[in-house]
Formats: sequence, C-alpha cells, structure tokens
Amino acid sequence: MNGLTEVSSHKCFGGYQKFFTHESSECKAKMPFSIYIPKQAEKGKCPTLIFLAGLRANEQNAAIKSGFQRLAAQYGMIVACPDTSPRGLNIEGAEDTWEFGIGAGFYIDATEEKWRKHFRMYSYITEEFLDLLVKHFNVNPEKVGITGHSMGGHGAMIFGLKNPHLFKSISAFAPICNPSISPWGVRAFKGYLGNDISTWKEYDTCELVPLYNGPPREIFLSQGTNDPWTPDKQLLPENLVEVCKGSDTVTLNMDIREGHDHSYFFVASCMEDHVKFHIQQME
Amino acid sequence: MNGLTEVSSHKCFGGYQKFFTHESSECKAKMPFSIYIPKQAEKGKCPTLIFLAGLRANEQNAAIKSGFQRLAAQYGMIVACPDTSPRGLNIEGAEDTWEFGIGAGFYIDATEEKWRKHFRMYSYITEEFLDLLVKHFNVNPEKVGITGHSMGGHGAMIFGLKNPHLFKSISAFAPICNPSISPWGVRAFKGYLGNDISTWKEYDTCELVPLYNGPPREIFLSQGTNDPWTPDKQLLPENLVEVCKGSDTVTLNMDIREGHDHSYFFVASCMEDHVKFHIQQME
Repeated sequence: MNGLTEVSSHKCFGGYQKFFTHESSECKAKMPFSIYIPKQAEKGKCPTLIFLAGLRANEQNAAIKSGFQRLAAQYGMIVACPDTSPRGLNIEGAEDTWEFGIGAGFYIDATEEKWRKHFRMYSYITEEFLDLLVKHFNVNPEKVGITGHSMGGHGAMIFGLKNPHLFKSISAFAPICNPSISPWGVRAFKGYLGNDISTWKEYDTCELVPLYNGPPREIFLSQGTNDPWTPDKQLLPENLVEVCKGSDTVTLNMDIREGHDHSYFFVASCMEDHVKFHIQQME
Repeated sequence: MNGLTEVSSHKCFGGYQKFFTHESSECKAKMPFSIYIPKQAEKGKCPTLIFLAGLRANEQNAAIKSGFQRLAAQYGMIVACPDTSPRGLNIEGAEDTWEFGIGAGFYIDATEEKWRKHFRMYSYITEEFLDLLVKHFNVNPEKVGITGHSMGGHGAMIFGLKNPHLFKSISAFAPICNPSISPWGVRAFKGYLGNDISTWKEYDTCELVPLYNGPPREIFLSQGTNDPWTPDKQLLPENLVEVCKGSDTVTLNMDIREGHDHSYFFVASCMEDHVKFHIQQME
C-alpha cells in the first residue's frame, strides 16, 4: 500500500483491526494510526467513524479499550484512530508534561515558532488523514462521522462544526467543551497559539456553535456524573449546554451517565449508543 | 473491606470494574486482582468466572482488553482476574525473561528452593483467592467457572480438572495444552519443579484428562488458525484432542477460529461464546 506501512493486523469480530504508520507531510513526522475494517468493506464502501483520543493517549487506546469492533462489525462501519500529536521530534520541552506537547496536540495548527512546523493536527486530520483513508480504504466519503474522548471530544466537535461538508455526524465522550477558559485548554492554546486570545476562538466549540452555518447538526455528548475532571472545570459541558440553547442549527443531545468517570470503562459503556447515533445520522 | 485495599473503581455497563490488592499468605506478597461486579450482585449471589491471564500479563489485561463487562452485566456474572505471579520480591533472575519468573507463574506450586516460598500460584488460587472472593463479594460458590488465555488457559484447565468440586465449568482461549513437552512449559516446569518430569504431570492437562474422575466435564476451547505460537508447538491443542478422544468423562468442544491470532482481539471476538458456555454449564 503506497506510503503506508502496516505494523500489524488482527482478525477481530469478522473484520481486521490494523495498525499502520505513514510519513505525514503536514506534521513532517512519521504518524501511526489504527483502523478497523469490517467484512462489509470487502464488498463496497463503508460508513466511517474517526475516533480522536485524549491527552496522553494515542492511536491504540480506543482500538484496545473501547470495544467498538463488535459494533463496527455489526453495522459495517470502518473506525479509524489517529495519534494525538506528532512524536519523536526533539522539540525542547515537548515531553515535560502530559498536558502539553507530545500526546497533547489539541487538534489545532500551532502558530508559535517552536511548534508550528510539526504541531499541525488540525490540517493533518482535515487535509491529509481523511484523504489517506479515502484513498487507501473502502471509506464512503459521503458518510464520515467524527467522535472522540476528552481532548479528542473537543477535536471531534471543532472538526465537525468547522467542516460540515466533511463530517456528517458528531459525537463526544466527556469532551473539553470550552478550552479557551479551561486550565488544560488555556495552557495549550497559549503555548501553541500565543497570547492573542482572539486566535483561540476558532478552536473552541463554545465559540464555534454561534458561528455555525451548515445544515442542522445534532451533537451526541456522553458525560459521566462522577468524572474527576468536572470539579477542576476542565470539561465545562454546562457552558456548551447554554450556548446550544441559543442556536437554531446546533442541537446538543446530552447523555448524562450516572456514576460514570472519565475512563475507557465509561467510553466502552457508551459506545453502542454512539455507533448507533452515527449510523442513524449518516442515513 | 478487611484485608483488601481498593485501588480503583469504575462504573461500567451498570456494574463496577474494581481493582484491589491484598496481602497473600500463600505467595507471601502483595497481590493485585481485578473484579467486575454486575448490578445483580446488589441483590444476591452471582455466578462467577475466574479469568487467568497469560505470560507477561496481569490482573488488568482481560479487564481492559477483552470486553467481558458488557456480557457479565447482561448475564449477572462476577468476573475476577488474579495476577500471573507474585512480583517485587528481588528473586535473582526472576525478571531475566518474559517466559519465566515474574509474570509467568504457570499456576503451579514451585518446589525448587529459589521459588518455592513465593511462587505458589496453584495454592493461591485454590486455597486463598477463591475463599477471598466468596468472603468479600457476592459470589455463589456453587457456580464458579474458570477460563484463561494462553498460559492462563493451561491454568484454567488444570484447576478445573483437578478441582471439579470448586469449578463447575472450564473454558480456554488458545491455551498451552501440553506444557510438559512445549518449550515454554519445559522451561517453567524445569525451573519451578526440577528435573524429575514425573512431578510435571500433575500440572499438564494432557496428563490430567485420563486421570479425571469427577462428573462429566466439557471443555470449551477457542483456537485461532493464524496463531503465531502454533508453528513453535507451544500450544499443542492437537495433543489434547487426541487425549480427549480416549476419555469417557472429558469432552473437548473445539472452537476453531479461522484467521484469528493470539491477541486480545481474538479473545474479545470469542468472549460472548465463552460467557454463554459458562452460564449454561453452571445451570
């Protein structure tokens, strides 16, 4: 497969869970990704879900921990998971903390000098990764949805709202809803984008909802009531609830999960509802 | 909870996935375990499945990777996963290789001087872990089944065949069926039990089947056709097939999985059939 290196392939629920690397021109780095290819892809193009992982995670977490393969097999859905940042680039300070740098790309295009060459996760997903999927796999480009966990849920919502032509459905698991004012988000946006907070807004779901001008869109959002990041005001779903109340085109479908935390045990518990949501929205 | 330390607890499919440690008197070490407690355990005693992990694995692998929680929730089954050996004991050479020592206890009671004080996984499971489960959780002691992956599948079969009064059902995922003559098994048995191979037989499923004198027992065994350990003759299910042909009381239910390998993607794909098997056998 031109430009892709298959790292491993595992039969799983009648399809194959595969792991690849490729040389990314956007990030100027070798980027790994995982992809589940259901049996249905042997016969035709399939609806496809992109799952974006959270802080510290990578292309493997959802593939190993969330149990989506059983559902992807059932619904004939491809599921692709990119990494959360470029790695191995010897950028000074890139590995000092788990909240910023390696494993914490925040799905934005950095503009600060130190980061702007490689930390281009926004363009990587929209300009390169999606094309790669369509070119190399049996992805139906008319039926691509996007989801993610925590920082990846933030990513899914900004990608979906800024690119309704690319993504037909949006969901999120315990996402960072308002990164411009949450501690993780402020640190990342200051580091990658600099001190001019007007530039932060284009990557903040709560700022993007009022500007959304695509077809009506429902966001399915699962949030546990026992999430340890809630007291720290990292996620702020309440702000997104407020913003969506004022929108004619973006509807927030809040799925409150009593007693659930922020782990993949929560993600796995909600996964079936998310897969069904995406399949239904893509119809 | 007396003698147990809860490390973490995660709501999952309506129940809780919990992680504990306790001080083991058999292994003279702090031992971790994981346990899934379905909602049904709030109201009464539940059928319980013990899952034994393979080489290098621990109490977390099945809980994170195999997706059993959805099924355990559906069938009201507790699932408990012990570790694969004691750890952190500064035994010389215990961490030299992944095939022997730490993470490779082989579910036997060592007799060789260097190992016999701590490496007592056989007695740990039968004399201590099972009692601990019954004492601290809503385990129905009349409905306990045992399963495992690879080295853990070997463990499940020897525990089940040697203790039909304790374990009412046996299954295995790609188990080491004939360790006395497989490279992994020979290394472990020589190391833990010494050179007298007559002592190895009591921990070898292929030797135990002809000696089995309990009630009729069916072993459900899943094996992938693309398992990389097959060419190395580590697993030898074909030997178990032959031995069971000569048995009146032990039936081998071989579940051959076309194209599957040895990973947890294989385990996850087969899990539903195993849970259903145990529930049915326990009725």
